[in-house]
Amino acid sequence: MDTPDRFHFCTRRTVEFADTDMAGIVYFTHFLRYAATAEQEWLRSLGVRFLATDGTLAGGWPRVEASCRYRAPARWQDELRVALRVREVRTCGFSYDFWIFGPGTPDGKALAEGFCAVAHVALDPATGQRQKTPLPEELRRRLLAPPDQPMPAV
Amino acid sequence: MDTPDRFHFCTRRTVEFADTDMAGIVYFTHFLRYAATAEQEWLRSLGVRFLATDGTLAGGWPRVEASCRYRAPARWQDELRVALRVREVRTCGFSYDFWIFGPGTPDGKALAEGFCAVAHVALDPATGQRQKTPLPEELRRRLLAPPDQPMPAV
Amino acid sequence: MDTPDRFHFCTRRTVEFADTDMAGIVYFTHFLRYAATAEQEWLRSLGVRFLATDGTLAGGWPRVEASCRYRAPARWQDELRVALRVREVRTCGFSYDFWIFGPGTPDGKALAEGFCAVAHVALDPATGQRQKTPLPEELRRRLLAPPDQPMPAV
Amino acid sequence: MDTPDRFHFCTRRTVEFADTDMAGIVYFTHFLRYAATAEQEWLRSLGVRFLATDGTLAGGWPRVEASCRYRAPARWQDELRVALRVREVRTCGFSYDFWIFGPGTPDGKALAEGFCAVAHVALDPATGQRQKTPLPEELRRRLLAPPDQPMPAV
Repeated sequence: MDTPDRFHFCTRRTVEFADTDMAGIVYFTHFLRYAATAEQEWLRSLGVRFLATDGTLAGGWPRVEASCRYRAPARWQDELRVALRVREVRTCGFSYDFWIFGPGTPDGKALAEGFCAVAHVALDPATGQRQKTPLPEELRRRLLAPPDQPMPAV
Repeated sequence: MDTPDRFHFCTRRTVEFADTDMAGIVYFTHFLRYAATAEQEWLRSLGVRFLATDGTLAGGWPRVEASCRYRAPARWQDELRVALRVREVRTCGFSYDFWIFGPGTPDGKALAEGFCAVAHVALDPATGQRQKTPLPEELRRRLLAPPDQPMPAV
Repeated sequence: MDTPDRFHFCTRRTVEFADTDMAGIVYFTHFLRYAATAEQEWLRSLGVRFLATDGTLAGGWPRVEASCRYRAPARWQDELRVALRVREVRTCGFSYDFWIFGPGTPDGKALAEGFCAVAHVALDPATGQRQKTPLPEELRRRLLAPPDQPMPAV
Repeated sequence: MDTPDRFHFCTRRTVEFADTDMAGIVYFTHFLRYAATAEQEWLRSLGVRFLATDGTLAGGWPRVEASCRYRAPARWQDELRVALRVREVRTCGFSYDFWIFGPGTPDGKALAEGFCAVAHVALDPATGQRQKTPLPEELRRRLLAPPDQPMPAV
């Protein structure tokens, strides 16, 4: 998968000590958490309200699938850049590719790249159960817009 | 704090790779998780039902205070023994001391020892809020019983 | 992917409270940790020595790729069964599929299923660097053997 | 413990979804990680070099003791302020108090407050073992300076 030069969302984060393991590198599952945290920041920036007025979850975005290919390790104190790009928009969910760039990564080469598909669910007031729910129209429109964010500079 | 020879509850667990950090040892906060997990296993063994019939939390045991003194590190694959002993029982909560013994620990010497105080809360059906609630009488009686579990053998 | 009826390795684990998130279910990255922990238990059972005599890592099994499809959530206290099955054996690594079965899962239906590819690296004494290293012959033979473990009963 | 109005170091962080548990709040051990991460950021700002030129740990700051008192929960998306203040400086280590302030916390009232004591160790080239080592003189001087950072505004 070639790294594109435009994304739907980019953010930064610094690797914490607690994310490392005894091999001296970031434990592999944390890359998926970094992507999911970026996704939530992105959706918030698109107007998604995750929390009801009482502070509980208003709905949810359960994972359908997640994957990651590991190219090079990340280490404590690394300032990472996480970039997301929509792959597919469906009625009740969407999927995106993500890339994680390290501090010393030459342009266009990611430490890791992956994919995540999420469903959109909302609480059905009648049953009290969460069930698949169409994406709000405005969000759908935003997800379908062409990616326009360049990769953040090191 | 001398290690006692009788406890209210003892359990075992093996250190996972993901619990280590780049110093090659268990990241320090996990000892408190090990103690809290043992506490939950203990309370279940005393008849506490944590979950309502719909799978949500029936009440809760929020932390009031937690502390740990670190004597020696734990490492990947170590088979730890976690021992708990009630310190104080109050109307709406209790506290306990805990000890974590490693595989090579000579008798009576713990890798770590600590303290945890928890409150008992329940959902008030009238307000939908969680609030401090007296311990069930049977649980209170069990917590006040003398500790009778010996330290598990290595 | 149909669930097979024979695996190379099966193990059990119970969901800890700390593995849940505010949606009330296991946070999605933990499924991959559950699989990796089972993998390490499996490799140990095949004679792999992970640690040098000084307690440091003798070599390593870095992730090349990991993925997971989520069918149904896991919850606190669930007694999960994790099953692994070799997909491909290569000179310096291998890959496997995994399945995570929940307590109420009907036979043959997993909460989650995934895939993991790992490389085998060892410390080069000349350079002090870790580099890709062929699988030990005995391990290779074991990985290539037909899967013979049935799914553990609930 | 009254909250002071001057600290040695203050930083901010936002609660991640993965830090919550099924009670809907931050799992209790993460407060100690938040404090330790702030401590590392602080020590770096004082000139401590944690990593050797090969990227491994140059020495270490193992925990001797850690504790936390919980006043109120933190929740997903909360923008927390973490403040540290030296309690005691010893030859081969030091201790500090910490406070974690939430977004809605009135001035001077922390969600949690705690204490951490750390030792300073360095690799002995003769033995290859880590052992207690006096604090560098410049660091010692900085730790003994009066706290001069005000609590960050909400």
